[in-house]
Amino acid sequence: VDPARLVEVQARINRQAKPKGSLGRMEELARRYVAISGREDIRKKVIFTFAGDHGVVAEGVSAFPPEVTPQMVHNFLEGGAAINALARHAGAEVIVVDMGVNADFPPLGGLLQKKIAKGTANLAVGPAMSRQQAIQGLETGIELAFSCVDAGIDLVGTGDMGIGNTTPSSAILAAFSGLPVEEVTHRGTGIDDPALQRKIDVIRRGLEINRPDPSDPVDVLAKVGGFEIAGIAGLVLGCAAVGIPVVVDGFISTAGALIAVELHPKVRDYIFMAHRSVEIGHGHMLERIGQKPLLDLEMRLGEGTGAALVMSLIEAALRTYREILTFDEAGVARGNDQ
Amino acid sequence: VDPARLVEVQARINRQAKPKGSLGRMEELARRYVAISGREDIRKKVIFTFAGDHGVVAEGVSAFPPEVTPQMVHNFLEGGAAINALARHAGAEVIVVDMGVNADFPPLGGLLQKKIAKGTANLAVGPAMSRQQAIQGLETGIELAFSCVDAGIDLVGTGDMGIGNTTPSSAILAAFSGLPVEEVTHRGTGIDDPALQRKIDVIRRGLEINRPDPSDPVDVLAKVGGFEIAGIAGLVLGCAAVGIPVVVDGFISTAGALIAVELHPKVRDYIFMAHRSVEIGHGHMLERIGQKPLLDLEMRLGEGTGAALVMSLIEAALRTYREILTFDEAGVARGNDQ
Repeated sequence: VDPARLVEVQARINRQAKPKGSLGRMEELARRYVAISGREDIRKKVIFTFAGDHGVVAEGVSAFPPEVTPQMVHNFLEGGAAINALARHAGAEVIVVDMGVNADFPPLGGLLQKKIAKGTANLAVGPAMSRQQAIQGLETGIELAFSCVDAGIDLVGTGDMGIGNTTPSSAILAAFSGLPVEEVTHRGTGIDDPALQRKIDVIRRGLEINRPDPSDPVDVLAKVGGFEIAGIAGLVLGCAAVGIPVVVDGFISTAGALIAVELHPKVRDYIFMAHRSVEIGHGHMLERIGQKPLLDLEMRLGEGTGAALVMSLIEAALRTYREILTFDEAGVARGNDQ
Repeated sequence: VDPARLVEVQARINRQAKPKGSLGRMEELARRYVAISGREDIRKKVIFTFAGDHGVVAEGVSAFPPEVTPQMVHNFLEGGAAINALARHAGAEVIVVDMGVNADFPPLGGLLQKKIAKGTANLAVGPAMSRQQAIQGLETGIELAFSCVDAGIDLVGTGDMGIGNTTPSSAILAAFSGLPVEEVTHRGTGIDDPALQRKIDVIRRGLEINRPDPSDPVDVLAKVGGFEIAGIAGLVLGCAAVGIPVVVDGFISTAGALIAVELHPKVRDYIFMAHRSVEIGHGHMLERIGQKPLLDLEMRLGEGTGAALVMSLIEAALRTYREILTFDEAGVARGNDQ
């Protein structure tokens, strides 16, 4: 993202009839969106909700049974989930991407079939996937980003569905950061204390057995990641490559974004971090990525729900950019604000 | 607000196919809105932007000249200000209420003429207004709330315009809380260090000379308040009386809401606090009111801009309430989440 362009956009914001900087982070949203995309409005918005299953659920790390992953995929396609409600609010389309759900789907409207396998292997006993599968997942996400260019999609959001997927997300963070597993592992969909202890032990074992190499993000993704996380990582990489701003949802999406940023640090300039999740590891991820979340609404649902809310916020910010008159246009006297 | 109704609404949210509580404060928004209003959707939304001038600007407490107040009123009516852009985003109407601008306006669409006087007196040398004027301001706001019932307005937002009005707002907070003036006084539209010191001194003098009685909120409003703040206080009181949820904007609006809550503590149950302002005194006000702000976007513009953003968030929350299927409807297996 061209620094000169950011300065130029902010200069226009500074001529608008209001105290300088008084719209705070709304100005940041407008400035970054316009500088990244070269646009002042959004034609189409899409949220890609990547779904995948996780072999590690065999260890009892989730409060929900694994059949919920395909059940929720059907719910998304029928429009009855939280992400559907919030995407409708934001005027965004939801596209569900089957990256590795442990079920067979017939051809269904709104579902992209990109299944790598029917769920990852159990990361507590060996690698979650092969390096080749990790690369396949990344490529799928990258290709989706490229497909957005011709489709006139000017803002992309990430989302996830996969019972058990806070476990690989915490493992990815632990692998990159070296932080103690108990400091990055939390309750996911709502596990009790014994399950939390199990989850911590499982991640510790997974890291010991797999020894993911933090200097090789594809290795981290393959050994302790997930198929939907691979898709998200690829989507974020691809959006940066084609210059489409990408709103990254909560904990699982941020794990994917972290893979992308560790692969290529400049990717961070294209990311809008939607919100601060309840998951305790999220703050550490956000710090490594170096983008501050917009919202803190104590959400922990995933699906892309936080991304949908921030898409609406970006629309609002672009409206202020386009529609607030300058001091001269409005006939308002300037101040000596700093 | 009926506590049983809050429990009932939350119980319905808990049947929706998602981990319990996972939409965080979005659930709180839906729960409170539905329990307060008895509705699950919003017909019309209005933001009342109250405008007034302040005699205390003679002391050099603002970065902007006072003629900006009427200039911005014209800008609001022409649709060129930040609040217009954000209200359009939220699908809300903006109604500007002249509570005491130091200018004569011809009849203008979108402007309610409720002028009490052409600006308050200088609170640094005597009371800002008479007790009778304070009551008139409160009554104006209360009447506006009552007029919303017949107009089918189901969500109200507050906003303000008045060069110099962070000075009375800080003074009101200091009067109620007894906090040191320097801990509740900040840069407003962007004053430099000497002006900030002047502003602190002015508020100290105002409190010494006027001795507002914190057990008599109308006395506080009259002695160190403002006409637009009186209108906001009345609007918040009136909304609570008629059961319309009211979104309170930033620092100045919260000063008005504080007057209302000090007059009648139950009013707090009808208030949605939009956002945390950059003004250092705002946190203390929020604590006294006992409602947590929804957003923290480093905004400090007023006008109702934060309220407009949160109106959109409430719409999103109501969509989740109406549109997310239950576990049974969606055919999704339940978890053992807590």
